[in-house]
Amino acid sequence: MSLKEEMRQLAARAQASSRQLAKLTTRQKNDCLLAMADGLVRNAAAIKAANAQDLEAGRAAGLSSAMLDRLALDDKRIEAMARGLREVAALPDPVWRIMDERTRPNGLKLRKVAVPIGVVVIIYESRPNVTADAASLCLKSGNATILRGGKEAIRSNQAIAATMLDAGARAGLSANAVQLVQTTDRDAVRELVRLVGLVDVVIPRGGESLIRAVAEAARVPVIKHYKGVCHVFVDRDADLDMAETIVVNAKCQRPAVCNAMETLLVDEAVAAKFLPRIAGVLKTRKVELRGDDVTRRIVPDVKPATEQDYFTEYAGLIMNVRVVPDVGAAVAHINRYGSQHSDAIVTASDAAARRFLQEVDSAAVYHNASTRFTDGGEFGMGAEMGVSTDKIGVRGPMGLEELTSYKWIGVGTGQVRG
Amino acid sequence: MSLKEEMRQLAARAQASSRQLAKLTTRQKNDCLLAMADGLVRNAAAIKAANAQDLEAGRAAGLSSAMLDRLALDDKRIEAMARGLREVAALPDPVWRIMDERTRPNGLKLRKVAVPIGVVVIIYESRPNVTADAASLCLKSGNATILRGGKEAIRSNQAIAATMLDAGARAGLSANAVQLVQTTDRDAVRELVRLVGLVDVVIPRGGESLIRAVAEAARVPVIKHYKGVCHVFVDRDADLDMAETIVVNAKCQRPAVCNAMETLLVDEAVAAKFLPRIAGVLKTRKVELRGDDVTRRIVPDVKPATEQDYFTEYAGLIMNVRVVPDVGAAVAHINRYGSQHSDAIVTASDAAARRFLQEVDSAAVYHNASTRFTDGGEFGMGAEMGVSTDKIGVRGPMGLEELTSYKWIGVGTGQVRG
Repeated sequence: MSLKEEMRQLAARAQASSRQLAKLTTRQKNDCLLAMADGLVRNAAAIKAANAQDLEAGRAAGLSSAMLDRLALDDKRIEAMARGLREVAALPDPVWRIMDERTRPNGLKLRKVAVPIGVVVIIYESRPNVTADAASLCLKSGNATILRGGKEAIRSNQAIAATMLDAGARAGLSANAVQLVQTTDRDAVRELVRLVGLVDVVIPRGGESLIRAVAEAARVPVIKHYKGVCHVFVDRDADLDMAETIVVNAKCQRPAVCNAMETLLVDEAVAAKFLPRIAGVLKTRKVELRGDDVTRRIVPDVKPATEQDYFTEYAGLIMNVRVVPDVGAAVAHINRYGSQHSDAIVTASDAAARRFLQEVDSAAVYHNASTRFTDGGEFGMGAEMGVSTDKIGVRGPMGLEELTSYKWIGVGTGQVRG
Repeated sequence: MSLKEEMRQLAARAQASSRQLAKLTTRQKNDCLLAMADGLVRNAAAIKAANAQDLEAGRAAGLSSAMLDRLALDDKRIEAMARGLREVAALPDPVWRIMDERTRPNGLKLRKVAVPIGVVVIIYESRPNVTADAASLCLKSGNATILRGGKEAIRSNQAIAATMLDAGARAGLSANAVQLVQTTDRDAVRELVRLVGLVDVVIPRGGESLIRAVAEAARVPVIKHYKGVCHVFVDRDADLDMAETIVVNAKCQRPAVCNAMETLLVDEAVAAKFLPRIAGVLKTRKVELRGDDVTRRIVPDVKPATEQDYFTEYAGLIMNVRVVPDVGAAVAHINRYGSQHSDAIVTASDAAARRFLQEVDSAAVYHNASTRFTDGGEFGMGAEMGVSTDKIGVRGPMGLEELTSYKWIGVGTGQVRG
């Protein structure tokens, strides 16, 4: 069988399964999730054994220690996966939510209700916990899932998926509700993302190059989680103590994640006062600063920033600093160099805040708060699939509700159109 | 300048304009729309003169009389465009609607608010009124528009767009808020739909082949309005008078549109009773019937239907008829052969209705009402851009609200993440 036909059959099985999943009650879905959580804990030894094989192959292939760490599973990480499944079980069911309701003058009753999307393909890299996280979010939202993890984690992913499916089957779940792509052939992704009519959406989770490659190959919709080039703007009317706290948090609390900040913009009216202070604090935090000319006149030991630096997601302890004339210039900088992810203004001025919040074209914009809050958990969604940088469909944190589509239901008494 | 660079500059101008548009007040947008409506009426002679040139060129090129009719503008059609603009002005502004609001335990106030999408490319065929309709919906929703109409209507479209922009400019609108692609080079579309970062969405309006070609070439999101292969299922518990009324309406009231029905499914329990009756009525309406074997045993002069017929949008007076064992088989038929557009069940049984409404995976599903209601106006949206058959983002009628994206706004008092 050709790879193309193999993927087509895989997706057709997923679609058939999605029709069943859409009909499950909340109770049935939660029972599956809880059974899966128990299964993971019970089957931890087998999962760790499979993971040990992946780690051994990874070491032989020369994977970096950071990659090996992402790949490694221990009892604590398996417990965390199980806890994640139980948390998803505890969340409200997003399916059949009534999103709108109206009765037309002719008496036709219309309701807009949330329904599962259908078949969701998830493409991810080396962390095996994504297998459990993604499958559980899709299951709770009534979607069939096709999972394609990194080839370095294939044995771990197979062990996790088999454990979940086995537990799910005993709780009544269809065997094709969660399917793992078994081949490690790279062209499998290319085939999958072109299956218009069978696959409803693709969610690539990983680095920018993975996402771009998927988006380029895809003919079905892709929900993209591009990079986070996030900004904090310290306005002339900022409380500088608050600004310092927010900048340090946004940059240093977890610099490798997408909602960490990359560039500090400072209003020229407070630059001379704020820059030496924040540079001193960030130096103790081992943050390398790269600044524009004005910044470097005020804090001479800052390195020069190139234009390319302003586009860069460092995901580490490097930060750009630029002095701007006013809030309008800050907005213009962000809309040009940012990634439409998360940006914050620190100010006591309502007018400056209003302008910033209105004009910055990003998924999340903050007034006097850290960019680090852009996260499903922090937003009260309970769990998330990532943070979408798209503007069509989901934007920002993607929780259970964001994994649904909708349909319009019209109930009449024989109405016809005149 | 290369075509690619020309399109890039066009889109960059649109993006710059979209930043201005997003800031316009409702009053400013409505003033523009009303000025445009007045402008169209005032400038009717020039518009008709441009249209006469298009018609002459079209006749010389051998366009069909149906195409020439779609292309033709007279005072009545120009008045209708102006009326459309005034109606859009009267609709509520969809921008800055609060879609969700929550305060987190740390005091962070989150609001999910509607914002314009940004730059919307509309690709359409021969009807010049789309120029005014599409531009007005995009303007009211704060989006910059790039319009690409059929080349046979280019002079008419230019006259309409110039009139609207001239009127808009006097009401304060940016000159690049609505731009018409001036070249008729077919590759212009290909370049436009690949401008990731400048173009936010593409909406092709037209036949299935146009939409498929755009979707295939695009690298930016496409909102697709594929064909409408719509069904009416007459259940065993149907009121057959109601069923007759709904079938006749869904098929005959306006057979060329996407929400007209193509296939009648009849429960075998009522087939012998209902089929001769509906066949008789449809014969007087000059509808050609194509049926399965069971249908043809009951109504012998029905032609045989091929499997391909069940996939076909006739957009005319042809209708498939199939007898199915029960509601489950009707659902299976629709999910296999339909286009996820609009489907109806006629029944007095709540259980059958519930199952149909839940399991048919279409943008709009009806109980005891005609499929013909799937329409922005009928749904109370006031106007529409079309009916999306996508499941990501907009599904079903696409009015003003559906032309917006959203952002999350977080307002704090210095919150940082712990």
